[in-house]
Amino acid sequence: MKKLMNNSTKIVSQFLDGLVAAHGNLVERLDGTEVIVRKEMTPNKVGLVVGSGHEPAHAGYVGAGMLDAAIAGEVFTSPGADQFLAAIQAADQGSGVLLIIKNYNGDVMNARWQWKWQKRKALKRQWVVVNDDIAVDDVENRRGIAGTVLVHKVAGAKAEQLASLQEVKDLAERAISNLRSMSVALQACTLPSASKPSFSLSETQMEVGIGIHGEQMSREDVLPSYEIAQLLVSHLEKEIDLTKPLYVLINGMGSTPLLEQYVFANDTLAILKKKDVHVEKTFVGDYMTSLDMAGISLTLFAIDDELLSLLQSNATTIQWTEVSQ
Amino acid sequence: MKKLMNNSTKIVSQFLDGLVAAHGNLVERLDGTEVIVRKEMTPNKVGLVVGSGHEPAHAGYVGAGMLDAAIAGEVFTSPGADQFLAAIQAADQGSGVLLIIKNYNGDVMNARWQWKWQKRKALKRQWVVVNDDIAVDDVENRRGIAGTVLVHKVAGAKAEQLASLQEVKDLAERAISNLRSMSVALQACTLPSASKPSFSLSETQMEVGIGIHGEQMSREDVLPSYEIAQLLVSHLEKEIDLTKPLYVLINGMGSTPLLEQYVFANDTLAILKKKDVHVEKTFVGDYMTSLDMAGISLTLFAIDDELLSLLQSNATTIQWTEVSQ
Repeated sequence: MKKLMNNSTKIVSQFLDGLVAAHGNLVERLDGTEVIVRKEMTPNKVGLVVGSGHEPAHAGYVGAGMLDAAIAGEVFTSPGADQFLAAIQAADQGSGVLLIIKNYNGDVMNARWQWKWQKRKALKRQWVVVNDDIAVDDVENRRGIAGTVLVHKVAGAKAEQLASLQEVKDLAERAISNLRSMSVALQACTLPSASKPSFSLSETQMEVGIGIHGEQMSREDVLPSYEIAQLLVSHLEKEIDLTKPLYVLINGMGSTPLLEQYVFANDTLAILKKKDVHVEKTFVGDYMTSLDMAGISLTLFAIDDELLSLLQSNATTIQWTEVSQ
Repeated sequence: MKKLMNNSTKIVSQFLDGLVAAHGNLVERLDGTEVIVRKEMTPNKVGLVVGSGHEPAHAGYVGAGMLDAAIAGEVFTSPGADQFLAAIQAADQGSGVLLIIKNYNGDVMNARWQWKWQKRKALKRQWVVVNDDIAVDDVENRRGIAGTVLVHKVAGAKAEQLASLQEVKDLAERAISNLRSMSVALQACTLPSASKPSFSLSETQMEVGIGIHGEQMSREDVLPSYEIAQLLVSHLEKEIDLTKPLYVLINGMGSTPLLEQYVFANDTLAILKKKDVHVEKTFVGDYMTSLDMAGISLTLFAIDDELLSLLQSNATTIQWTEVSQ
């Protein structure tokens, strides 16, 4: 698979330089690191830090009202301890730092290990683990996928109100407990250093429950969009309170055109309408990708008044701009 | 190639329904047509109308500060006369309508034919033709590609100031004369009704000067991102005044991940910096696609004070939100 790049070992670094070159008014790169930080931090605000690498997640969400720092590892690899420390120190504006971690063994182990090490630095910090992907039955092993972006939004807005570290953490955990996601892939992704896709799906197959690193769960016959929407909603509704208003996030995995994403949005919203669900807002687009994977994820987020207000509050980032009306 | 859809003949209609289902606060679909219009028109404003079909172009740019109506044809097909008339009538708020046409034989012929027919309706309307693609030497035959989105932005902002139809048209033409684009493709797109890509490119080939309907110009050996950027800039600088400030639009063709788009952005901006060009703002993302084509286009827009102010003014659409600071 051809890629638009110069060198597979430099692709992440050159991506980060590109972000800064294009959006230097919003973000900068910490010298000697793979860390993207807000150009202007809010004093006394709790800092929000996240490991990156699924463009635009999470460097695309660094900015006022969302994240303070995103740390890129190599493709599909958790960033190292020194990078985490640099990001946490940069994000710390005197009120502590909340680390938002997607639930993957590597990420969590890495964070745990660093945690002990950082303790010596006497940094005030907490973490939360996002595990929105219900494709995994065992809750302990559930992975963090596209719903993480909505956690950034509400936690970022809460922090911007100068809430305490504990308050921001509690809010993030309330968000995590009210959102669930599930994905399908029609085509695997190809790593920049590889000559062929990570796995192969025939013209009649899809992968149900795919993870953002291409983790496979269940290979099935490919279905029309409407039936895929039915399948995902049937799983999600077991764990989401559909009597509450919903934010719906339909997320392309990297190479699924908006033409197809909106067909799927139409199907999903028709199914939710039949169930008398109140959808407050719908997002459609590439919010958390898996390189050039073809596929889609559906996230349902059951909200309350405070979560709604936080979702609607101002944010200025590269990929998410929210303007209060 | 698998697609996330229900039926290839209904994909456009279901896409439009999905847009409205997801963003019913911003847009609606005219009954019995493939026309997407602003939910709330601005009274006495010149209406802006464009033929659609390269999602998010142009339905994604319908809204305050940009377009009033976008008309979708079938995939890669110009919409019919009745659809154009419906869109123009809906967009007409008493001050006339400007039709923005991308320069393709079908689109222009179609518009000409309708023009005579519509004359009988005594509608006050003008048109402009966007021909930003310099891959075609003969200026008459140059096609309209991603730069069209920037024309929507400045013409939309001018119209929102309640400028006259002639003033909006003159402004759009000034924009058109100051912007140029050029594209490369690494992989062809596949039509929804087809089982394989429109043409085939080997692992060592790229298509230079590709059009948004997959029009082929020159097949060459695939180059690293930096050299592709050099190639495109070397052509564009022959026709763009690099002593003026620039808006730069780097546009993914549908299945090129942001990871790669930002590597290309980094290379392009480094080359422009070496030439002492003042880049006022850079956009990176899928602004005008060609289904699932892999590739990129580069647009350079040489601006003056008025164009800058129009580019920076408020807009609220599905895909473009601009907030004056």
